Amino acid sequence: MRLLSSFALTLLLFASQSPIQPSPAPVTTPLPPPTVRIDDYRGNAARIIGAALTSDKAYQRLAYLTDHIGNRLSGSQNLEHAIDWAITEMKKDGLDNVHPEKVMVPHWVRGEESLELTSPVSRKLTMLGLGNSIGTPADGVAAEAVVVRNFDELERIGEGVRGKIVVYNVPFTDYGATVSYRLTGASRAARYGAVAAIVRSITPVSLNTPHTGAMRYDEAQPKIPSAAITIEGAELLQRMNDRGEHPVLRLKMEAKFLPDAESANVIAEIKGSDKPDEIVLLSGHFDSWDVGQGAHDDGGGCIVAWHAVRLLKELGLKPRRTIRVVLYTNEENGGRGGTAYLDAHRAEISKHVLAIESDLGTYQPIGFGLGAAAPAQARSNMQEIAKLLSGIRADRIAANGGGSDIGPIVAEGVIGGSFDVDSSRYFEIHHTPADTIDKINPKDVASCVAAMAVMAYTVADMPQTLK
Amino acid sequence: MRLLSSFALTLLLFASQSPIQPSPAPVTTPLPPPTVRIDDYRGNAARIIGAALTSDKAYQRLAYLTDHIGNRLSGSQNLEHAIDWAITEMKKDGLDNVHPEKVMVPHWVRGEESLELTSPVSRKLTMLGLGNSIGTPADGVAAEAVVVRNFDELERIGEGVRGKIVVYNVPFTDYGATVSYRLTGASRAARYGAVAAIVRSITPVSLNTPHTGAMRYDEAQPKIPSAAITIEGAELLQRMNDRGEHPVLRLKMEAKFLPDAESANVIAEIKGSDKPDEIVLLSGHFDSWDVGQGAHDDGGGCIVAWHAVRLLKELGLKPRRTIRVVLYTNEENGGRGGTAYLDAHRAEISKHVLAIESDLGTYQPIGFGLGAAAPAQARSNMQEIAKLLSGIRADRIAANGGGSDIGPIVAEGVIGGSFDVDSSRYFEIHHTPADTIDKINPKDVASCVAAMAVMAYTVADMPQTLK
Repeated sequence: MRLLSSFALTLLLFASQSPIQPSPAPVTTPLPPPTVRIDDYRGNAARIIGAALTSDKAYQRLAYLTDHIGNRLSGSQNLEHAIDWAITEMKKDGLDNVHPEKVMVPHWVRGEESLELTSPVSRKLTMLGLGNSIGTPADGVAAEAVVVRNFDELERIGEGVRGKIVVYNVPFTDYGATVSYRLTGASRAARYGAVAAIVRSITPVSLNTPHTGAMRYDEAQPKIPSAAITIEGAELLQRMNDRGEHPVLRLKMEAKFLPDAESANVIAEIKGSDKPDEIVLLSGHFDSWDVGQGAHDDGGGCIVAWHAVRLLKELGLKPRRTIRVVLYTNEENGGRGGTAYLDAHRAEISKHVLAIESDLGTYQPIGFGLGAAAPAQARSNMQEIAKLLSGIRADRIAANGGGSDIGPIVAEGVIGGSFDVDSSRYFEIHHTPADTIDKINPKDVASCVAAMAVMAYTVADMPQTLK
Repeated sequence: MRLLSSFALTLLLFASQSPIQPSPAPVTTPLPPPTVRIDDYRGNAARIIGAALTSDKAYQRLAYLTDHIGNRLSGSQNLEHAIDWAITEMKKDGLDNVHPEKVMVPHWVRGEESLELTSPVSRKLTMLGLGNSIGTPADGVAAEAVVVRNFDELERIGEGVRGKIVVYNVPFTDYGATVSYRLTGASRAARYGAVAAIVRSITPVSLNTPHTGAMRYDEAQPKIPSAAITIEGAELLQRMNDRGEHPVLRLKMEAKFLPDAESANVIAEIKGSDKPDEIVLLSGHFDSWDVGQGAHDDGGGCIVAWHAVRLLKELGLKPRRTIRVVLYTNEENGGRGGTAYLDAHRAEISKHVLAIESDLGTYQPIGFGLGAAAPAQARSNMQEIAKLLSGIRADRIAANGGGSDIGPIVAEGVIGGSFDVDSSRYFEIHHTPADTIDKINPKDVASCVAAMAVMAYTVADMPQTLK
């Protein structure tokens, strides 16, 4: 999961639906009666849920992806390997129209990097450079650190940070609020002449755990290198700052962009029997950061979307409309997959009945977050269909939700939403070396597949339209 | 905190009192009436607690130790720097008889180290070599991994591990039970011809967090190198093992022993007014592992023992008996400080009224764990004195307790016990880069000083003897 300035709407969506915050309650204002008759779908929902909960195929595929391929940053061999593997496996699954859709993606590479406290004592600090950051000269950037708790403190110091390294020691509140320091902290510090920006990792807890993630430059300001440090490191610098010890840091980063690389969105479908041109889209993003295994973010989301469709195929359930899986590329540091999908499918955007993105981790499912702009009739129908998921406790339709990758098509009018899970521990491992499959419960994977498959199948098959 | 074979008694004590397990309940069998009259001590207890809870001096000294000196492995410059600093500061505090007592300590150095999975995929695994381990040849030890869940599995495989690397993937139950794999796993695997031993870190949780700690060799077996990996790494190898993928590892360690180094126990006292030859001993260990800051283990314990005495000095409270602080050296990988203390003080061992070791982290204090062998009269008096600590919730006298460093004098008949705190999260950071002062609540430091000072003062001042 990522936040990018290019989709202000998405940013707002995420800021408001950050899973650490209380989720938006279901809409309680009167909705029109549902047009879907869920009694007609109980039998197939039962088959889907029963089959999903007695299979470990989705989990085993996720284990292959994470253990054998590993993390998948845009431009990496791992990502292209994963894409090739998914296409091969989707064809083996017997899915329809399996193919890659070419996307040129930014190719940011981390290289070697380090952060050292050189005064008042010498100590290596655990760090991860931020995605999209420039590197430093070979001998690094060395300067006194100025530690601030928030942007207000930075503004008060203003020109006082000139020639120094600004350290944002911002305690985690929720992702939407805290991540703005990672995204914009470098340029806001550069405006006052800072030579680098260091950000406390966006997480509520730490075992000296660095969290990477994207940053972005304000083109009006000088570009300065930027990295994340652990809570432990940030608090050390805070204490030294507060004691007037004038900590001095040396940051070294080889980070740089190589020429854009060829990548692809992966597409697979179950073609609709009656209205094959109408599309229910299920998605995740196949790229990840270059640490850990990209398990929760977002290998799990991809496998859940994919296996929801795979399960329907296995059960011989062919809905009236087409269900399309999209494994987007380059969500984390560019969003090119989402825009490329819009560009490639502009002619059929109006035929997208619903687009769901699964990118909040793979935990116990809760339900779906339907975009606030969704028509009331669509909301009423999804609330009705979700009743089929009450037995697996995934029957909540939240008042809002979305995803970065579907942002561009939602902006074009597609009804969009998030697949919601109990993300309460997501930001402990998000964008870290600890985002590994051991953090994912196989039972949750199975439940997620069940919830996605029942919702997608029913929306795709209902005789009426969703909205 | 460490477990060493040289003190089987201590091992048993720790195994039984591991703070993750339910603590031994206070003794409920009838005890003799207390001889101490706590009404005589309420006034001074009030002064002590009031002063401790309104001061941050102890915390600030701990911050200096951790932030400016850092971790303190035996043989390191950091440890000797810390010892010199403590002696200087204790003299500034006006304590009596401040001096170092020379101890020659093992000088194990880690050097560069790495662990790489080379098949079926290539991946670096986060690791920490185990203290006391030998190193590997320069190009490492490369062999197939055999993953076992416990010693029983190893025994079943037996000669099947010859030429291979044994990986102990043992889920954490409690420290005493789980740590035996770290301590003895290498030699037990070497018995069957294994070429290295890898141990899952001894912890209930992980954010890809490696935990080091001591291992020991059975001299009857070949010595093989041994290291800890994270829960994430161990589970990855387990999955590959279970899938029949025959994971292959390459372990590189430069670990070795240099010649023994000169170190010291640090001694400081408040001389008793009436019975200066009788001693109440408060202690922690000043050495730590070579990662993190050695904050909970055991910088905090040392500062608490030291500042309990410093506070009494500041308040002008001079008890009848002497209160002695001992900051032991080399608890973690040798226990030489504890044995050196016994050797140097053998003539006055019988004059030790009580010895308390603080080495379970610096959290909210609970009370004291009095060794099971302690006389009933001593237990009765400590239970009575502890009532003075009920207001700070530190009034429990557990049925058992002790510490590695005081083990040698307890074996000689000294009444010994532990300073008990809420250690429920201790093993999350124990022996890791995350054992840093940000994990310590300044309020807990103040409460610990209060509890230690009240108990020590009252035992040292009571007209009757403790036992």
